[in-house]
Amino acid sequence: MESRYNPVTPAIVDALAGIVGHDAVLTTPEALEPYSHDETVGLRAEPEVVVRVTSAEQVAAVLRLAQRERVPVTPRGAGYGLSGGAVPLCGGIVLSTERMTRILEIDRENLMVTVEPGVITGDLHRAVEAEGLFYPPDPASLDSCSIGGNVAEGAGGPRAVKYGTTRDYVCGLEAVMPSGEVMTWGGKLVKDVTGYNLIQLLVGSEGTLAVVTKIVLRLLPLPRLQVDLLVPFDDFQTAADTVSDIIAHRILPTAMEFMGQDSILAVERLLEKEVPYHDAAAHLLIQLDGNTQAAVEADMELVGDICLDHGARDVLVAQDRPTRDRLWEARRLIIDALNAESPVNHMEDVVVPRARIHLLLRGIQEISARHGVRIVSFGHAGDGNVHVNVLKDNLDDETWAGAVSVITGEVYRLALSLGGAITGEHGVGATRPRYLPLALDEAQIALMRHIRDVFDPNHILNPGKIFG
Amino acid sequence: MESRYNPVTPAIVDALAGIVGHDAVLTTPEALEPYSHDETVGLRAEPEVVVRVTSAEQVAAVLRLAQRERVPVTPRGAGYGLSGGAVPLCGGIVLSTERMTRILEIDRENLMVTVEPGVITGDLHRAVEAEGLFYPPDPASLDSCSIGGNVAEGAGGPRAVKYGTTRDYVCGLEAVMPSGEVMTWGGKLVKDVTGYNLIQLLVGSEGTLAVVTKIVLRLLPLPRLQVDLLVPFDDFQTAADTVSDIIAHRILPTAMEFMGQDSILAVERLLEKEVPYHDAAAHLLIQLDGNTQAAVEADMELVGDICLDHGARDVLVAQDRPTRDRLWEARRLIIDALNAESPVNHMEDVVVPRARIHLLLRGIQEISARHGVRIVSFGHAGDGNVHVNVLKDNLDDETWAGAVSVITGEVYRLALSLGGAITGEHGVGATRPRYLPLALDEAQIALMRHIRDVFDPNHILNPGKIFG
Repeated sequence: MESRYNPVTPAIVDALAGIVGHDAVLTTPEALEPYSHDETVGLRAEPEVVVRVTSAEQVAAVLRLAQRERVPVTPRGAGYGLSGGAVPLCGGIVLSTERMTRILEIDRENLMVTVEPGVITGDLHRAVEAEGLFYPPDPASLDSCSIGGNVAEGAGGPRAVKYGTTRDYVCGLEAVMPSGEVMTWGGKLVKDVTGYNLIQLLVGSEGTLAVVTKIVLRLLPLPRLQVDLLVPFDDFQTAADTVSDIIAHRILPTAMEFMGQDSILAVERLLEKEVPYHDAAAHLLIQLDGNTQAAVEADMELVGDICLDHGARDVLVAQDRPTRDRLWEARRLIIDALNAESPVNHMEDVVVPRARIHLLLRGIQEISARHGVRIVSFGHAGDGNVHVNVLKDNLDDETWAGAVSVITGEVYRLALSLGGAITGEHGVGATRPRYLPLALDEAQIALMRHIRDVFDPNHILNPGKIFG
Repeated sequence: MESRYNPVTPAIVDALAGIVGHDAVLTTPEALEPYSHDETVGLRAEPEVVVRVTSAEQVAAVLRLAQRERVPVTPRGAGYGLSGGAVPLCGGIVLSTERMTRILEIDRENLMVTVEPGVITGDLHRAVEAEGLFYPPDPASLDSCSIGGNVAEGAGGPRAVKYGTTRDYVCGLEAVMPSGEVMTWGGKLVKDVTGYNLIQLLVGSEGTLAVVTKIVLRLLPLPRLQVDLLVPFDDFQTAADTVSDIIAHRILPTAMEFMGQDSILAVERLLEKEVPYHDAAAHLLIQLDGNTQAAVEADMELVGDICLDHGARDVLVAQDRPTRDRLWEARRLIIDALNAESPVNHMEDVVVPRARIHLLLRGIQEISARHGVRIVSFGHAGDGNVHVNVLKDNLDDETWAGAVSVITGEVYRLALSLGGAITGEHGVGATRPRYLPLALDEAQIALMRHIRDVFDPNHILNPGKIFG
């Protein structure tokens, strides 16, 4: 954490109003409150002022002012991050892109879309799908989160199995440097090797290197057909073996999610209705897509047979949208269900090579048992990315505080020992800096710090994140 | 260009021999000659010594020595680059990875392969295809170039249309920093957001930031079927319209290459045999793949119909390997044919948004006519990346030297005016640094230079490249 910043004075607030207009500057406690947190449970920090920018020029002017006055700036998308990326740990200015919501162009001929950072990811999906096009990345919060936040965090989602994550689609960026310089990188190009790839350095840099003000994203033709399979198993090991066997059969599904019985039962309690096969130890949710009925059916049949060969209790198939949405309902509601049962909880986001996920889950069960703390794991079986929810339930505050810290360290060490990483899609943010030395050695972290210093020698931008 | 380096003394040669063994150090003019050039026409520079390393530890020791002695080090893969990346502009040490040719592991369960940098890309293709797996990137020199060179240059290839380029497959790197520190980034992970994405910064950094000693690449299931279509057209505009229309029909072929009649006729002269439809103004070569006959045939039929609707003279279909190879023969031989006709020539590698390729080609024809210099363009219609071959033919040396420089600048300005870039897959290297300011502004280039300084403050690694 840094402490070399100046407070936001009334003169600075006036100057900000001069840049963005009075209605775009927030200073009252009530107005600031929503900007003091994101979706990270238990993390809060008040900004001194919020500015809601609408252009790169405004961003540049705000950054120049902040630079001159040594006031920290925390960029913010929609505030749906899960590692505190948008939380202003050092106070100062929250620079919100929530008003930059224009889809500037859907270019059918070049399969590219140009957007402002405040566009809600789900709105982007619907806009391009209406044109028969496809933007695959699908973070779970897609109807609330913004594409600018997705770019800042390098957001993933279930479809990463087949289609990769946000970073695989970013072809061009307009970004404002901490100095206030506006730079344009790349464009509507799927190939470009003009010097270092600054685009890929900016994606996932968690708002510490620059503020993105325009994004060019590659699109795909929308697959004509999508099918979902819900497959209950009597034990998790069998489900994990099935995932490996599907891959070994040279099928790469769009998504392969898993949920344990503990997740399913939590969702049942939330919905107050029965989920099919709620007595199964594990569910796989497998999505397939393609352009012809024959191709999708061939994959579906093969996947179904593999599941049944491994002892799946059933293969529920959903082809139409309402049935598909119903199958995904339980998966999407897990976080809500766990929040409802234990409002105090802690979510991790480790990732391991996909074939080692059963070792990760077994190890987490052991950690849970050893500490007597409930841990519910679910997530992306197809890419090895597991969301590990540690629940306070009825533990007293002191026991909980101690347990969370120890468990987090143990889960990270377990994932790393399996060749994994401490965060697959949520980012380091405000919650993981002290664990970064588990994942990277001193020289690697120093290298990253030096890169930050090149962009932002005064650490004006999003201080406290990634490096603490 | 830098000139702050020391010569390689006999003591340094002895020290190098102590690190890698005497047989792995080359110093005679005959032995050094092959390391004084790559495939870039007309570019040569002699190294003072060549070391053929076999491990990260050897690379680290060589770099520490070079750092201490202020001797430049030029990393070299197989030497098939087209922008002089492996040419030792400042003399010093060429560090060759040609002996690091082990495929360390093909991991079927995780769809990952781990290789040393000296593995020939075509060998990698064959090794994983034997297991039913697929490494899509396919630079034209794939049977000669090495995967380490591909990573250094961010190499592309025809299949980029559907499958992207080298950078889209790199999940893990072991790399030796100019300081001699060995660092491991990423792993067998398709999702990882632990801090800045140094992997993607290193890919395409042209050997100026680190020496890669191990590479983890993501694989796909090998598509069960591939089909190629050769489609002759009476004019290029129609061929370009057809490409756009195929995309508009929501089909993303594996590859869409184009060749003008000038290319076809040059290949005919080289082969001394007739190419089918050699009187056509333009050929498209379209590759489709998939897992079921029905799916591939459906795509093939639709693509064929679109071509014929636009006035294609025929649609030649090749499904078996020998026929497919025959269709690709002309495309693969274009560079050889042009080199045979005009051993002095100059190849550019511009890229534009794919729907603007016809504007690029028309502009290049105008440039050719205005200067009275033959220019043959061919390449990747599907991704907008065009190889522009400027031929000396019978021009006198002075006219040629003047013309090439002017034409290069005009081609770059044209591509940039169309929203393109100066190099799509060959890199900036030794041949384009003075044109970099056309593509990037001063602040952008300064930012890249500062990033290099973080990695390599003494500019030991591959000096003269990218920034001149």
